Amino acid sequence: MRDAYHAELDAIGEGLVGIANLVGSAMARATSALLDADLDLAESVLGTHSRVEDLQRDLEDRAIAVLARQQPVATDLRVVVTSLRMSADLERCSALAQHVAKVAQRRYPEQAVPQDLRRTLLEMSQLAQRLMAQAADVLVTRDVEAAAQMEHDDDRIDELHRGIFQHLMDDRWHHGVETAVDVTLLGRYYERFADHAVSIARRMVYLVTGEHTDPAAP
Amino acid sequence: MRDAYHAELDAIGEGLVGIANLVGSAMARATSALLDADLDLAESVLGTHSRVEDLQRDLEDRAIAVLARQQPVATDLRVVVTSLRMSADLERCSALAQHVAKVAQRRYPEQAVPQDLRRTLLEMSQLAQRLMAQAADVLVTRDVEAAAQMEHDDDRIDELHRGIFQHLMDDRWHHGVETAVDVTLLGRYYERFADHAVSIARRMVYLVTGEHTDPAAP
Repeated sequence: MRDAYHAELDAIGEGLVGIANLVGSAMARATSALLDADLDLAESVLGTHSRVEDLQRDLEDRAIAVLARQQPVATDLRVVVTSLRMSADLERCSALAQHVAKVAQRRYPEQAVPQDLRRTLLEMSQLAQRLMAQAADVLVTRDVEAAAQMEHDDDRIDELHRGIFQHLMDDRWHHGVETAVDVTLLGRYYERFADHAVSIARRMVYLVTGEHTDPAAP
Repeated sequence: MRDAYHAELDAIGEGLVGIANLVGSAMARATSALLDADLDLAESVLGTHSRVEDLQRDLEDRAIAVLARQQPVATDLRVVVTSLRMSADLERCSALAQHVAKVAQRRYPEQAVPQDLRRTLLEMSQLAQRLMAQAADVLVTRDVEAAAQMEHDDDRIDELHRGIFQHLMDDRWHHGVETAVDVTLLGRYYERFADHAVSIARRMVYLVTGEHTDPAAP
């Protein structure tokens, strides 16, 4: 009985890692769709979101079943409850990847991102993906040190995000309001995606150490 | 023992209602601060957010304590788990009210919102507050019918949100890019706030009926 129980806890953790990988990959594809104005690729990202929602519901049902049948206490209880929260973070990330894909779709066959901001958005996307991959690793390894190192990439995302606003406010901005609106939203999507990845790692640190690494972290 | 248990469940529900009221009020004050360019009021909203975070952590600790000590099953278990998710929704809403206040703060003493969009943003804010008040009521009454009626206000918010984009894309837009960026973000903050309020009501409907009212709802 005890073994089946731990197998169920492990399955929940593996489910989270699977969704994290799927969501990281969705953001990679959404960004390619955006920067290459690739409609098919954009639409494939929209399909991924409903798959993530299905996986997420399955995972939540499984977590609730474990709570009901096994009635875990102490750390195991916190692990299951935290998994539910992480699952919600991942669902939001999937929705954010979908939002990026929708900008590509709406602007097709035009380019949504002007040349002078491509590098910034590409770097934001790559950092966001890397943070999600690191969060997935932290789910497996519970490595507090690795989780702490994610803060550096998150700071860099925030710096790039501020850079976008500075660029938009520059008197030399000549891409018009529609592009300014798209870029404003895109910047926020990547920044929120990265925040969720960092939250996942912070929640794991809290499980391991009992300490919140950021006073502002929910 | 059974009575203490239900008192604990009730206290969690009351805690959620309290936070929902606080968050609705924070959005009201943030919007006043925004539309009146009132720096003191904006700063008071920033103070509310840390109070919401404290309340939210207390509530989560209490929920986890109930799970550990009382080991609820069936509906009670789902109620507690759902409370944790609702608590996360409310924390996001508080952060969104804070974001609105920060726009007011950043633009002070200037007005962030041009005259021709004041009514739209005011209506979005009022609908968002009303949705939050309705969500708080649904937490108490578990009234599925009342929850369903919230979809109408949510549709109206989405319509206003689309109207903002149309307005921004209009060739007659003459408020510049900085204001376009602010208004883009503000529109999204209100729309997300409303989404979270609707999510809370939908989760309650799912608890009562066992049916998801929106296929896309997590």
